Amino acid sequence: MSNGLRVSILGGGSAYTPGLIEGFIRLKDTVPLERLVLMDIDSRKLSIVGAMVKAMLEAEMPGTRVDLTQDRMEAIQDIDFILCQIRVGGLAARHLDESIATELGLVGQETTGPGGFSMALRTIPVMVEIARDIETHNPGAWLINYTNPTGLVAEAIHKACPVKVISICDEPMILQEALAGFVGVDPGSLFMDYFGLNHLGWARRVLLRGNDILPVLRQTMQESSDIDLDKVFGSTVMSDPKNQLELQNTLRIFLETGLLPSPYLQYYYFSDEMIRYRVSTGKTRAQEVIELEKAILADFEKVTAGRKKLEIKRGGKWHADMMIGMLSAIAQDSRSIYIVNVPNRGSMPELPYDKIVEVPAVVDASGAHPLAVGNMPASVRGLVQAVAAYEELTVKAALEGSQADALDALTCHPLVPSREVAKRLLDSYLRTHAEYLPQFAGRH
Amino acid sequence: MSNGLRVSILGGGSAYTPGLIEGFIRLKDTVPLERLVLMDIDSRKLSIVGAMVKAMLEAEMPGTRVDLTQDRMEAIQDIDFILCQIRVGGLAARHLDESIATELGLVGQETTGPGGFSMALRTIPVMVEIARDIETHNPGAWLINYTNPTGLVAEAIHKACPVKVISICDEPMILQEALAGFVGVDPGSLFMDYFGLNHLGWARRVLLRGNDILPVLRQTMQESSDIDLDKVFGSTVMSDPKNQLELQNTLRIFLETGLLPSPYLQYYYFSDEMIRYRVSTGKTRAQEVIELEKAILADFEKVTAGRKKLEIKRGGKWHADMMIGMLSAIAQDSRSIYIVNVPNRGSMPELPYDKIVEVPAVVDASGAHPLAVGNMPASVRGLVQAVAAYEELTVKAALEGSQADALDALTCHPLVPSREVAKRLLDSYLRTHAEYLPQFAGRH
Amino acid sequence: MSNGLRVSILGGGSAYTPGLIEGFIRLKDTVPLERLVLMDIDSRKLSIVGAMVKAMLEAEMPGTRVDLTQDRMEAIQDIDFILCQIRVGGLAARHLDESIATELGLVGQETTGPGGFSMALRTIPVMVEIARDIETHNPGAWLINYTNPTGLVAEAIHKACPVKVISICDEPMILQEALAGFVGVDPGSLFMDYFGLNHLGWARRVLLRGNDILPVLRQTMQESSDIDLDKVFGSTVMSDPKNQLELQNTLRIFLETGLLPSPYLQYYYFSDEMIRYRVSTGKTRAQEVIELEKAILADFEKVTAGRKKLEIKRGGKWHADMMIGMLSAIAQDSRSIYIVNVPNRGSMPELPYDKIVEVPAVVDASGAHPLAVGNMPASVRGLVQAVAAYEELTVKAALEGSQADALDALTCHPLVPSREVAKRLLDSYLRTHAEYLPQFAGRH
Amino acid sequence: MSNGLRVSILGGGSAYTPGLIEGFIRLKDTVPLERLVLMDIDSRKLSIVGAMVKAMLEAEMPGTRVDLTQDRMEAIQDIDFILCQIRVGGLAARHLDESIATELGLVGQETTGPGGFSMALRTIPVMVEIARDIETHNPGAWLINYTNPTGLVAEAIHKACPVKVISICDEPMILQEALAGFVGVDPGSLFMDYFGLNHLGWARRVLLRGNDILPVLRQTMQESSDIDLDKVFGSTVMSDPKNQLELQNTLRIFLETGLLPSPYLQYYYFSDEMIRYRVSTGKTRAQEVIELEKAILADFEKVTAGRKKLEIKRGGKWHADMMIGMLSAIAQDSRSIYIVNVPNRGSMPELPYDKIVEVPAVVDASGAHPLAVGNMPASVRGLVQAVAAYEELTVKAALEGSQADALDALTCHPLVPSREVAKRLLDSYLRTHAEYLPQFAGRH
Repeated sequence: MSNGLRVSILGGGSAYTPGLIEGFIRLKDTVPLERLVLMDIDSRKLSIVGAMVKAMLEAEMPGTRVDLTQDRMEAIQDIDFILCQIRVGGLAARHLDESIATELGLVGQETTGPGGFSMALRTIPVMVEIARDIETHNPGAWLINYTNPTGLVAEAIHKACPVKVISICDEPMILQEALAGFVGVDPGSLFMDYFGLNHLGWARRVLLRGNDILPVLRQTMQESSDIDLDKVFGSTVMSDPKNQLELQNTLRIFLETGLLPSPYLQYYYFSDEMIRYRVSTGKTRAQEVIELEKAILADFEKVTAGRKKLEIKRGGKWHADMMIGMLSAIAQDSRSIYIVNVPNRGSMPELPYDKIVEVPAVVDASGAHPLAVGNMPASVRGLVQAVAAYEELTVKAALEGSQADALDALTCHPLVPSREVAKRLLDSYLRTHAEYLPQFAGRH
Repeated sequence: MSNGLRVSILGGGSAYTPGLIEGFIRLKDTVPLERLVLMDIDSRKLSIVGAMVKAMLEAEMPGTRVDLTQDRMEAIQDIDFILCQIRVGGLAARHLDESIATELGLVGQETTGPGGFSMALRTIPVMVEIARDIETHNPGAWLINYTNPTGLVAEAIHKACPVKVISICDEPMILQEALAGFVGVDPGSLFMDYFGLNHLGWARRVLLRGNDILPVLRQTMQESSDIDLDKVFGSTVMSDPKNQLELQNTLRIFLETGLLPSPYLQYYYFSDEMIRYRVSTGKTRAQEVIELEKAILADFEKVTAGRKKLEIKRGGKWHADMMIGMLSAIAQDSRSIYIVNVPNRGSMPELPYDKIVEVPAVVDASGAHPLAVGNMPASVRGLVQAVAAYEELTVKAALEGSQADALDALTCHPLVPSREVAKRLLDSYLRTHAEYLPQFAGRH
Repeated sequence: MSNGLRVSILGGGSAYTPGLIEGFIRLKDTVPLERLVLMDIDSRKLSIVGAMVKAMLEAEMPGTRVDLTQDRMEAIQDIDFILCQIRVGGLAARHLDESIATELGLVGQETTGPGGFSMALRTIPVMVEIARDIETHNPGAWLINYTNPTGLVAEAIHKACPVKVISICDEPMILQEALAGFVGVDPGSLFMDYFGLNHLGWARRVLLRGNDILPVLRQTMQESSDIDLDKVFGSTVMSDPKNQLELQNTLRIFLETGLLPSPYLQYYYFSDEMIRYRVSTGKTRAQEVIELEKAILADFEKVTAGRKKLEIKRGGKWHADMMIGMLSAIAQDSRSIYIVNVPNRGSMPELPYDKIVEVPAVVDASGAHPLAVGNMPASVRGLVQAVAAYEELTVKAALEGSQADALDALTCHPLVPSREVAKRLLDSYLRTHAEYLPQFAGRH
Repeated sequence: MSNGLRVSILGGGSAYTPGLIEGFIRLKDTVPLERLVLMDIDSRKLSIVGAMVKAMLEAEMPGTRVDLTQDRMEAIQDIDFILCQIRVGGLAARHLDESIATELGLVGQETTGPGGFSMALRTIPVMVEIARDIETHNPGAWLINYTNPTGLVAEAIHKACPVKVISICDEPMILQEALAGFVGVDPGSLFMDYFGLNHLGWARRVLLRGNDILPVLRQTMQESSDIDLDKVFGSTVMSDPKNQLELQNTLRIFLETGLLPSPYLQYYYFSDEMIRYRVSTGKTRAQEVIELEKAILADFEKVTAGRKKLEIKRGGKWHADMMIGMLSAIAQDSRSIYIVNVPNRGSMPELPYDKIVEVPAVVDASGAHPLAVGNMPASVRGLVQAVAAYEELTVKAALEGSQADALDALTCHPLVPSREVAKRLLDSYLRTHAEYLPQFAGRH
């Protein structure tokens, strides 16, 4: 590895990129950046975000070389860390994923439920192609995968190719940072006894100096109604105005079960309410994000033109800190603990040995070593096992282009009420996204 | 064991009883009946059914002693086989189980979903009491349990008490008999490679002289539209007029997945349709059965009074044959294969070691020895594991009277859309059936 | 399948063959024999035994066609059941297997310990070749494998080739027959709750009409010293004079542990004594058997020449009855229970899913369906797991010709005291049997 | 926890104690010691070692309060960390453990084989008593257990009592420090991919900046014959003159298998040689250690009297560093990785869920979180599973005083050749150590 890190970002035209760059700037003394390559197939976004990023780095880390490219190979060769946050089909495809589900009366969400299924079918072939390119052309490089749906993408990559990869999601980190802030300690001083699958996980205990803080937190939240939930649970990137519904739902699950859930659990515990809420907004979440993104990009243009000062949303900070912390753990072999998506190997004995699970792991220069988190409470075991089976079938369908497996996958998803509905969903997704689903072309 | 069998039936006033007695008459040469005790807390039904049964046995097995009683102990002591088909709260309670679920827009069914949950809470304490009475007062006797929900009841009994018990459901037998008839062979010549939980099982293969007949059957049914489905899949007791919807649904699952399902799978694969169907009838299934039962009891009275000839529905025949076959396998130590509900012990390695599973077992005088049926297809694994977790929590809640466990159980049931709905269900069931739920009295 | 069975015996020149034929004669009404092919590469033995067999069948089943051949293909094509009892390298190779071990101060035994390892290396390639020939040229035929070391050979065949195969050992059947005789019941009336690996198994319970007879048997044998052990435990084929040491050792294990062991367990429980005994005889067991075989073949010649009447040893009867019972269970799809060697599939959850285990199974026209025998007592679990790992490595070494795996296999065998000794054994076996070990030629 | 640590040492009269104190002195800036209690039932050793320790602390950490006591309770109350290194029966009992085994021709060793079994029977009741005393009188304190046989003692404590305990052995740390020194890096820069049971473990990989150094190390050691093995593998405490045999054996195992073994593996891989070696010395290892200890204590007296300068053997340093590092990880909640003995929970899926295993764990103020180390190579799996079963039975026997379990335990130990020998061992141990084995008094 060179003196400073050589980092590329596939999907670098994302509105999240400047937040990530802020992180590199914040941590420039411990994790110096030698070269940054932003790659995106959307030339307009690449140009806006690229200009912004160049300005930021020139101001704060003047020696860093920045390249913008639409050529994937340029972002793979001579790079130490390839960050990947692509969105196959863009937000337009996400809108279709979500609206098709919503129209059938189901949860219409990017990663959880039918939307995530559709996204996986589109995304997995591209991600496997990228992984194979890295394996072939730069096998020493690390692929840092946070492309959604992260768990499914991770499982597909591990099945298809022996590339060096770590798959991460910032959700558990957001929770950890928020909790730490609420309690008034450094995030690193908390240990999250966390288990599950991506977007389907729980903290069973949160240890501070050896003691579980969850019982006291639960007691406190039961008694006080004026706590700013955002300060306890955090909130996801670009959630402005804050998603009070999500926070309330997370609170309800915590108070009732004593387990601190991923915010995505609301789609399982309160699916009926989430469907009603989405219908009430009259638009998909994708449409909201499209507007948000438009505004952010416009802001970026103003900032670059010197007409505004950059201000990154909180979620961005957490996201960046986790990402850069992880890079640093690998680059400096520091054996830090992160909650990541890794092959199971017994960490969760009630799931298959090769399943990708989301658990705390020791991260060092060789990758992620999962902790043995043990058996699950019966109250969540069945749900996790059901989604695990759904994921196994979805990955198989996405890799092999089998409609039968795809239908079985949707049928067994807990949020799909019947095989009839699964069929309508599948037909609709395959027809609508045909251009992104070459693996299904001419197959049944 | 005495020369002839001494048999009692708890819940002997059931309309099913005469069908069972027909079976004893049919098999009197191989399984002679020395004494029969019918026990029921409903004196009117006991009297009608008892008169009918006495008439039948006097005509065909004149030496058999018959006793009617409302005293459970009389049906336990000096008995070889205690058959148990009780219904705590009667059909009235079942109607409430089903209608409460239906009103919340859910599947309203006796054993599958919320209805089965409510039934389990009421039934388990009584069945455990019965099992303990047998253990105490006649430990050499066999409890033959087919009280619904059979799997949950079986799990509770095994946890609570070391009584000699076999838990059975006639569904797989009905399927086997129908298939055999359709193919034109003796039921005993088929081997069902069957796995799952009660009312949640599949035949993966059906072997005839070493060959799996399912692929050819599937092909045939795909091509011919005029097959009488009743002849292929059988139909359950008292299903007259035949439940064409159930048969069509079973066919659809079979054609699409290649697995031959329990008819109850329709409530998972087509839950939305099943809900719509039930709403369309304007009444619960319990109400239909109440009417049916009334008619049957009236018939019995006519038969006893000599004004009509007895005619037992087909379902009754199968039910009786399985029951008496099982008694005979135990009494004569014959090592016959029956699909029964037994502790897992590795038979299905993807479920907990002590879970009650429904699999083929060798039945002899020592009880049931399950076959190792191995891993499940991924397409059904998640569903079975989810329901297994629900069952574990339901049994715990029913035995310990814990509302928290009960709520967790309902929340994680695949047919309950949200925790909010689970709460409304639980509140409603606990309030409505309070007299039958002493274990929850004064607890939370 | 034709009217009568068409049966071939690979290794048909064995002295066991006439005993087997006696069995066919005894059961000719239920399992008629249409054609018999004896195949052997030893023309002298084939001719002596063949003459004997022809005489027997002419006298008792005159319509049966008998063919003698040295051509394996003739014994594979147009055959229903291919029985396989080959001995690669003959008794001469067995003598070397045993003497090499004995000279190093170890147990020198045909199947248990180093001798069995060496035999497996020689036998597995030939057996896999046979299995593939059947798979290619007569895929409908059943391979009935009882070639030693049976468990290892079975594991290799299942790994290498999808032929229809059942692997059996007569030991558990001998035990069952003897016990039944001692108790005075029909062997079929006992149910052996048996578990383990081939030549490493135990009956945990022996059920008679639902009750375990082992506690009473143990009590009886503890109190009486004049019981003829042969009558309780049986004795293996050609054990004349009866092996009193083996019987005494089996008794000791039974009395001390309450588990009824395979006689081969003596080599683990009393390895030091077994080594001393073997040294005291001044010859290998192979040499004893060579003499015995010589005498038997001479007898056969006398019988064929009409100078003597045939008399088959008891062991032969049991062996034949099990073999023919098994053939009959397959041919007539009778679902009888036999203790056979089958892929685990969860039957013994503490062993790998694909391991070959020796457990009771329901045998029908589709093969063997193992019962779920569950967890082992801790007192034998470690030994079984250790030998299972040894077997896994031995099969791998035999199939792939890897000396490293072979050395690892011997090192981890419980009867090999050190890696140094393992090396000396391996070098000696590879050098001595080089002509039979082509898979190791030029490899390390 | 107070400002400085309050530490007690049960068995504080040990010759190892001053080495440990040296460690506290070395690390006084990061882990200040407020109070030290040495407890021992041997007043002479306590007095010699205590004087020495007092002199050391007065010179280097003058503010530290030191107490010597023979009263266990004084070493439990008002203490943060209770270190436990007791030896029930002293070295005299160890001599008997070893000599009884050696006389029967077996490995005579303190922890591995029969010697460890005997030691476990004596030690477990006392250790459980200590754990219960801590649980009762100072439940906030940590018990740091390194009393041999550590794995067995740990398993017994976890079964008997919920005290806060970490069980450690310095072997893996010695190996790690030596390797690091040989490679020229800081020990903390290596990650040991280690798995197994106490004194039965292997490093599968040793990672340095993400790369496994074992293949290169193996290559190097294969080619050079003049490497000082001590520098590569380390050597255990008080091994002076260095145990060249142990080092040579460790090298052989490493070169042949590629796995880096615990030095105790030599007793399994080369048991015959180890037995011959021990016989050749004409004395037990205990006798050697008794002489060594006598010399060390005499030295201590000289040092205390000012007639000599203290010099601690290297092993002592490693031991102290691990111990104090561990205390520090707990006291400062630092999440360092140590190889410790912890309940399995799926870390090694091929062993029972509750087995104590020796694996890398993240140590913090809440204790040890094991990493999921996954499945074992088949070449060692059987041995580990066999010893695991032996340990389970030994712990049961030691806790319940059951001779039957004790005999089963010894019988299934891989180093005990036969049940006959197991019986002789057990009789001899029970008779010889009767005063230390009250749990077996009057039982069978």
